[in-house]
Amino acid sequence: MSPTTATAQACANIAFIKYWGNRDDALRLPANSSISMNLDGLYAETTVQWLSGPGEDQLVLNETPQSGDPLRRVSAHLERVRAQLGTSSAANVRSVNNFPTGAGIASSAAAFAALTAAAVSAAGARLSERELSILARTGSGSASRSVPDGFVEWFAGDSHETSYAESFAPADYWALTDLVAIVSQAHKAVGSTAGHPTATTSDLQSCRVAGAQERFDRCRQAVLERDFATFAEVVELDSNQMHAVMMTSRPSLFYWLPESVLVMCLVRQWRAEGLRVCYTLDAGPNVHCLCEAADATEIERRLRTLAGVQDVRSASPGPGARVVSVE
Amino acid sequence: MSPTTATAQACANIAFIKYWGNRDDALRLPANSSISMNLDGLYAETTVQWLSGPGEDQLVLNETPQSGDPLRRVSAHLERVRAQLGTSSAANVRSVNNFPTGAGIASSAAAFAALTAAAVSAAGARLSERELSILARTGSGSASRSVPDGFVEWFAGDSHETSYAESFAPADYWALTDLVAIVSQAHKAVGSTAGHPTATTSDLQSCRVAGAQERFDRCRQAVLERDFATFAEVVELDSNQMHAVMMTSRPSLFYWLPESVLVMCLVRQWRAEGLRVCYTLDAGPNVHCLCEAADATEIERRLRTLAGVQDVRSASPGPGARVVSVE
Repeated sequence: MSPTTATAQACANIAFIKYWGNRDDALRLPANSSISMNLDGLYAETTVQWLSGPGEDQLVLNETPQSGDPLRRVSAHLERVRAQLGTSSAANVRSVNNFPTGAGIASSAAAFAALTAAAVSAAGARLSERELSILARTGSGSASRSVPDGFVEWFAGDSHETSYAESFAPADYWALTDLVAIVSQAHKAVGSTAGHPTATTSDLQSCRVAGAQERFDRCRQAVLERDFATFAEVVELDSNQMHAVMMTSRPSLFYWLPESVLVMCLVRQWRAEGLRVCYTLDAGPNVHCLCEAADATEIERRLRTLAGVQDVRSASPGPGARVVSVE
Repeated sequence: MSPTTATAQACANIAFIKYWGNRDDALRLPANSSISMNLDGLYAETTVQWLSGPGEDQLVLNETPQSGDPLRRVSAHLERVRAQLGTSSAANVRSVNNFPTGAGIASSAAAFAALTAAAVSAAGARLSERELSILARTGSGSASRSVPDGFVEWFAGDSHETSYAESFAPADYWALTDLVAIVSQAHKAVGSTAGHPTATTSDLQSCRVAGAQERFDRCRQAVLERDFATFAEVVELDSNQMHAVMMTSRPSLFYWLPESVLVMCLVRQWRAEGLRVCYTLDAGPNVHCLCEAADATEIERRLRTLAGVQDVRSASPGPGARVVSVE
């Protein structure tokens, strides 16, 4: 393989129907299918340069050379890419997130989707979107959802080959806005990779998973019909169910801060007043306020009046992972 | 039956293992067995005077004559007492709670335990403690637990006769203190009687109930061994599980306020620092901080420094329902 370089971008995504707990931790086969929206403008941009032979992989993240766990995780992913492409070369990886770490937006989905797309392209290989989604999934489960465009469904599957994501509606299908109310910039105590294996320690996980397909179907249909009332009900229920499992795990994972609960209470109240907004929270305290774009200005204004809200990030439905340059 | 009068007192109680959802709403047969502690000094004092014949029951609550729902609920309970005792006389009922309504302490348990004890005694009848507990249960499920002394277990049972509470350790067995952090005095939007039937609308209730006996056994043993670490773990887990069911019901019942979550977070932190304290919340936002009596002064001091905590009520393990006078 001659050394070549490629750069790819991939958006973060916010899950409407959550993924929590794996049926296979090593393969990152999730316990249930999930649904998400890519977040336009909030992306990782990753450049991969394959070297001419074996050696140590290198990783520079946001201009800072990495070692330890971040490098090991990227290198383990490159190892899977090498196995799939039949190469043994080392790689230099440079990646930049254009959104701050700790901004309430999971960075690993964007990072591993962009890394996968760039690494494959830099090797001169071509994979289908499905193959890219499968490969990205092995780096970070939700990265599978950052590969396709717009509104995305990730089929849990029951094997490596059957667990992948695809678009079920393009980014311009429904003018939703995700307003992320930042209530804490602290790094989360327990990240998703460490958190997923704890899911089965909650008595409630099996019941959550048993109902997941029904919520998935209802959410998918609500998006296709642009039915905000149904969408809001199922999205909040699904978020509450995931956090119910987290907080009843042993030991308990408690991601909500007082300010998170304040925003959640107000969002329910605002919706009762007629604004089209609902909340969802990932494995962290920041509150994603999903709203109809027409109501976004008023909701952002209200969020910014709250003392506990440090900042608000806004994103529309975004595109899938794409290669932006190949040398 | 000649007209006679009796006065009884019964304490409120705080559940360590919660009761939420019924297998029979009319009989108030709970979905799972529960464990509680009576709250010394926080009681209802109720006087029942049986009249010489049929007529309208009357209820004076905290010096205020009642009509509508409160009177109907008491009268329906008196009807069950009349059926059991074989009388048709009307009754005058006067009841006083020595703790304020909206103080984060469920009043119906104390009220229906005291009402039952007074009504039976005023009729010159004698019932065993178990019979009193069964009869009190039909007025308010958790009233069954305010009949016996100290630390109490309520066996869910599978029929009217098999669902009753009894003491498994006397009040002086373990020096626990319940510090109730009052964060809101507002009346709860949905009370327990209306809330219980919603439990089965949560996907998570069947999983919560499936694990309840194991938590019950673990909590009972922890109390008997005065093992605070195990007690804290299972009490918080059980509270989290009940609220998990509530917040995932359809529609969602969300009792936590931002201030509730703040106190919950701090209690976990204080315990990590070595203080023997844990939290539990009933169907409301106020946080019961259960602690070893030796740590109560320091914990109360800390709670009172919090801007969101309006007041703190303190209670030790209390006695069962008792008749204080018969005329």
